[in-house]
Amino acid sequence: MEKKNTIKENLCDVNLMLKTSGLVMQTWGNASTVDRERGKVFIKPSGVDYEKMHSDDIVVTDFSGKIVEGTLAPSVDLYCHLELYTAFPQIGGIVHTHSHYASCFAQARRAIPCFGTTHADYFYGDIPLLEPLEEKEVDQAYESNTGKAIIKYFTGGDPMTCPAVLIAGHGPFVWGTSLEEAFENAEVLEEVARMAMHTLLINPGAEKLEDYLVEKHFLRKHGRHAYYGQNRANDQ
Amino acid sequence: MEKKNTIKENLCDVNLMLKTSGLVMQTWGNASTVDRERGKVFIKPSGVDYEKMHSDDIVVTDFSGKIVEGTLAPSVDLYCHLELYTAFPQIGGIVHTHSHYASCFAQARRAIPCFGTTHADYFYGDIPLLEPLEEKEVDQAYESNTGKAIIKYFTGGDPMTCPAVLIAGHGPFVWGTSLEEAFENAEVLEEVARMAMHTLLINPGAEKLEDYLVEKHFLRKHGRHAYYGQNRANDQ
Amino acid sequence: MEKKNTIKENLCDVNLMLKTSGLVMQTWGNASTVDRERGKVFIKPSGVDYEKMHSDDIVVTDFSGKIVEGTLAPSVDLYCHLELYTAFPQIGGIVHTHSHYASCFAQARRAIPCFGTTHADYFYGDIPLLEPLEEKEVDQAYESNTGKAIIKYFTGGDPMTCPAVLIAGHGPFVWGTSLEEAFENAEVLEEVARMAMHTLLINPGAEKLEDYLVEKHFLRKHGRHAYYGQNRANDQ
Amino acid sequence: MEKKNTIKENLCDVNLMLKTSGLVMQTWGNASTVDRERGKVFIKPSGVDYEKMHSDDIVVTDFSGKIVEGTLAPSVDLYCHLELYTAFPQIGGIVHTHSHYASCFAQARRAIPCFGTTHADYFYGDIPLLEPLEEKEVDQAYESNTGKAIIKYFTGGDPMTCPAVLIAGHGPFVWGTSLEEAFENAEVLEEVARMAMHTLLINPGAEKLEDYLVEKHFLRKHGRHAYYGQNRANDQ
Repeated sequence: MEKKNTIKENLCDVNLMLKTSGLVMQTWGNASTVDRERGKVFIKPSGVDYEKMHSDDIVVTDFSGKIVEGTLAPSVDLYCHLELYTAFPQIGGIVHTHSHYASCFAQARRAIPCFGTTHADYFYGDIPLLEPLEEKEVDQAYESNTGKAIIKYFTGGDPMTCPAVLIAGHGPFVWGTSLEEAFENAEVLEEVARMAMHTLLINPGAEKLEDYLVEKHFLRKHGRHAYYGQNRANDQ
Repeated sequence: MEKKNTIKENLCDVNLMLKTSGLVMQTWGNASTVDRERGKVFIKPSGVDYEKMHSDDIVVTDFSGKIVEGTLAPSVDLYCHLELYTAFPQIGGIVHTHSHYASCFAQARRAIPCFGTTHADYFYGDIPLLEPLEEKEVDQAYESNTGKAIIKYFTGGDPMTCPAVLIAGHGPFVWGTSLEEAFENAEVLEEVARMAMHTLLINPGAEKLEDYLVEKHFLRKHGRHAYYGQNRANDQ
Repeated sequence: MEKKNTIKENLCDVNLMLKTSGLVMQTWGNASTVDRERGKVFIKPSGVDYEKMHSDDIVVTDFSGKIVEGTLAPSVDLYCHLELYTAFPQIGGIVHTHSHYASCFAQARRAIPCFGTTHADYFYGDIPLLEPLEEKEVDQAYESNTGKAIIKYFTGGDPMTCPAVLIAGHGPFVWGTSLEEAFENAEVLEEVARMAMHTLLINPGAEKLEDYLVEKHFLRKHGRHAYYGQNRANDQ
Repeated sequence: MEKKNTIKENLCDVNLMLKTSGLVMQTWGNASTVDRERGKVFIKPSGVDYEKMHSDDIVVTDFSGKIVEGTLAPSVDLYCHLELYTAFPQIGGIVHTHSHYASCFAQARRAIPCFGTTHADYFYGDIPLLEPLEEKEVDQAYESNTGKAIIKYFTGGDPMTCPAVLIAGHGPFVWGTSLEEAFENAEVLEEVARMAMHTLLINPGAEKLEDYLVEKHFLRKHGRHAYYGQNRANDQ
């Protein structure tokens, strides 16, 4: 019995870390996680201060968005999260923020070019920019249509090779195989965006990292042949 | 009796928050609030350190600027605040700062374009730039003429759809239905200005957010059909 | 007897504030003050960590630079400070830093344009850039020649109307009627430099503040007709 | 016996300082030191959180990279450090980071121009940019080939006149005669890079510091004729 709230407590912690890490101002962000065995999605309530949030405030829904635990209204972005959990079975956590530099690329309507090894250590290639929804899509089901646009982008691809996208004029959605990894990716995305902007300020014609270096760095940390860190039980 | 100083204490707190939030350096800013029933305006004294300010230092005036409580000289901007409280009955608090990025737009003599949903969540369209007063207006009654210029800008409009303006070469004036909301709007304005500058650095030809997205986001948080947050007693 | 170290303790405090305020990294800065009655100049020792500095470490010299108290070597910039104290009888403190944005203007070899009222509240017009010394002047008496260049710039003028200059390729020298005012001016200079850079990024063709506004703001805070703050015993 | 872990504890401290100083995010950096008498190199383990690292986690190898103490896998950059310690007998510590502004110059593929005296106080001239390795060099022995490229750059020169280089598309490697000096140089490099970027933003055509000023400042702090600081036992 003692551990029954662990998921909710973790989610509270990660939502608070969004604030303390500087990724989020006011209440502009939300993190969610999933318990796939029990078919439950856990998400931050809407417009609640991170500092005042208690694990009991976390809203739990099923995959259709029906609230199964909690008395507060869920984040307005719930339906976007639900689309992603349904389409991407390999993800365990989603983070949405208006983090400063990533959102500036979204506002500037530019993908984040892969300029260096810091980027390639986490994301295989550019962070894509998804064009804004059309007026009709916004009017009908804004949040779930946002999720559908992300899913469409990854058709035939693997969402874990680039666990972040920018929504034009808005900001990033980021995910990971776990909630903790989603948060880490959101932090790295923000630094990678800030680096890309300053790289362009130093050299507006900066060129992207060579393909073979992108590959070397991404694969040095991910996949069967990874040899970074303490977890080298692969074929090294 | 116990609560008789509450307004002054709140105002002290918000003035101190101007400093701790980084919106204000030195003594470059002031917050005020109003008790419309009793016809009183409460404002920060001039040139007093926020850290040393006590609730008894708050200056209270009537709507004509006559001091009715307090022994210190009020902020030099008092007459601007008075004009706004008189003209805009829906506002309950005013904040003036030289917050960095908003003031840089004021110095650059540029309105802050509405580039994204973060902006549109709080301000319906661009943050306007008011041209500087003419020499005669500065010489005669600088501070109240600043207030009059703001009022003139909103003639026939609603000051709550865009609760902030930039005074060219100077900085922002921001308001809200309450003192707390005025402070929140001042914080958001600063972030929105910083985002707009970086958006322009990434893409000097960046285009504004589509009208239907401005509308969607502003109305998702404001007005009868709002569905953000926990206060959804409207027609949702 | 108890107060005999007050000047040294104040100077220690201000030197430490250079670090905690972010104006100084490592040991890149120095503050000094003067006791004109006793003909003594007090300055930070060279290359000593601000955090470890004790009031006994302060070096005291006469106006010729002869050490009269203290066992440590004085800041290498001593002879520049001495030139300024000798030429400008109205100053009581000098601060030299490599503060980031002011030094970037010095490196870019640009004066800091007076773009707004924040600047005009403290400095009457642009912060001037002094061209670098010639090779001969550097070889012979680098530090005192730097002081002489500043003095030459103000020939026939009042160094209190603009209590800061930039040395090309180096950084700012700042002063005030007191040590505390010199520190305040150094902090404001840094913010004014940062604002000017961002103003230029938003609008590379930004124009300077109108003369009548420069005058209004500078004189609202300085001189006989000042009406900012609590000290309005002038002719208001 | 009591002091036997001193080197490891110092190295733990400096690795942690990489994080607290803001030079490093996540686990993106590593510091090492050397005991030349005993032929041992001490380096951070790979992918371990700085906050959780204990001195016993430090990996000790000989100059060929053979682990002689410790149970964890060493930083993946070990072989780059080993090359440098072997080729440069005068260095006592190496720091590799992805510090923000230095890495942005590396991503922009620009050397850091020597624009001012802050730079010249530590580095005699521009911080060089080394072109990325070729695909073959990356595939075969990426990390040791990186070290070899640095050594090749300094052929016939003194690595202590410019104790830092940028690896194109990656980030800086920095060294010093001691571990502490390597850390200080890494901190200064980051500030110098940030200053260079802002200098270019203020004036894209900014020119470098005059040679005689570079020389004056570098030699004022280094070498036989140095007269900065408290250590003036030279020929002054």
